Amino acid sequence: MTEVDRAAVVDLLGALAYGELTAFERLATDSRFAPTLDDKTELADMACSEFGHYRRLADYLTAEVGVDPADAMAPFITPVDEFHDSTRPSDWLEGLVKAYVGDNIAADFYREISVYLDPRTQQLVLEVLKDTGHAAFAVERVGAAIAADRRVAGRLALWGRRLVGEALTQAQRVAGERESLIKLVAGSGDLGEFSRMLGRLTERHTERMTSLGLSA
Amino acid sequence: MTEVDRAAVVDLLGALAYGELTAFERLATDSRFAPTLDDKTELADMACSEFGHYRRLADYLTAEVGVDPADAMAPFITPVDEFHDSTRPSDWLEGLVKAYVGDNIAADFYREISVYLDPRTQQLVLEVLKDTGHAAFAVERVGAAIAADRRVAGRLALWGRRLVGEALTQAQRVAGERESLIKLVAGSGDLGEFSRMLGRLTERHTERMTSLGLSA
Repeated sequence: MTEVDRAAVVDLLGALAYGELTAFERLATDSRFAPTLDDKTELADMACSEFGHYRRLADYLTAEVGVDPADAMAPFITPVDEFHDSTRPSDWLEGLVKAYVGDNIAADFYREISVYLDPRTQQLVLEVLKDTGHAAFAVERVGAAIAADRRVAGRLALWGRRLVGEALTQAQRVAGERESLIKLVAGSGDLGEFSRMLGRLTERHTERMTSLGLSA
Repeated sequence: MTEVDRAAVVDLLGALAYGELTAFERLATDSRFAPTLDDKTELADMACSEFGHYRRLADYLTAEVGVDPADAMAPFITPVDEFHDSTRPSDWLEGLVKAYVGDNIAADFYREISVYLDPRTQQLVLEVLKDTGHAAFAVERVGAAIAADRRVAGRLALWGRRLVGEALTQAQRVAGERESLIKLVAGSGDLGEFSRMLGRLTERHTERMTSLGLSA
């Protein structure tokens, strides 16, 4: 691995690990507002899957990359925390949309970036990002809420746009401060690829909003 | 199994399952206030162990006892929630003491009661109550905080007494409303055993407070 590659692996896994750890916290906290015990245990189950992913990433950083996970995560604590602080769900449905839409934008981004990594790291990233059936849960619950009250759709569509806006704000900030990931993509020699990647991320986000019954 | 025994099994496992589910939520929520990333992941790990225990109890209720876990848990939701609402930790150390002291009083109680159950249910109860090394974590962290500032000990000792008081209030309420567990112990023909059990619970609580460096 070159130094550029190694720095990129540490940054990518650090950002992803801290994302998983905060996803655990967020889902676990939101489970308190679940309307039924089944919804509560579903969210708790999702939270523990995210924590399991965190563990795999932290173990890989320690054993394979030789970096303390806390050090790898450090640069991403402020932007990730600020994203969550500025997008606190005010109810159960906003929490579900955030979990589904937000986590999947992040997952698409990591998957896109992972093609530039060494095969072992790429495999780990793809494994921890695999959907574990939780998307279907969010789509079903949000769909039912919209069917019961059409006004919910307008409110949640606005919420979805706000999530994307705040995520982009923090992503730009990270990109400005951490050059490793940009060098990694630039090193592929195809800068047009970067804008095509953003196009694909936007497209998939629009598809997800549509699957929830919301306009993007 | 007699009807009295079956009702007691449903009640015991229902109370225990709801206790584990709220323990998960509480630990996960408290992990946000952890002073370091290591403390955070330790608490998250504890939270996911509790959720794993919940899953085992819920699966057993469904598959072996033939009862919907939500129905078994229903009578215990109000007392358990009221216990937690009346004992919200105001900081990280109060959260640790609550996790260690509170969970262990509950665990001692369930272990004592489990001797009256059929062997398979007893084995399940003992397995989900096994300490997974988390006690040592609480003892170490609280001990270090007291060593750094002796005034902490007085505050946390008061907190420990409040936890026990609130737990007894809710336990008496449950005992007044659910006769199955009392019948189970009474059915053993040794009512003196009940007060000896309370004596043992108190004694072990005192030992734990001492191990934290606190007066009970």
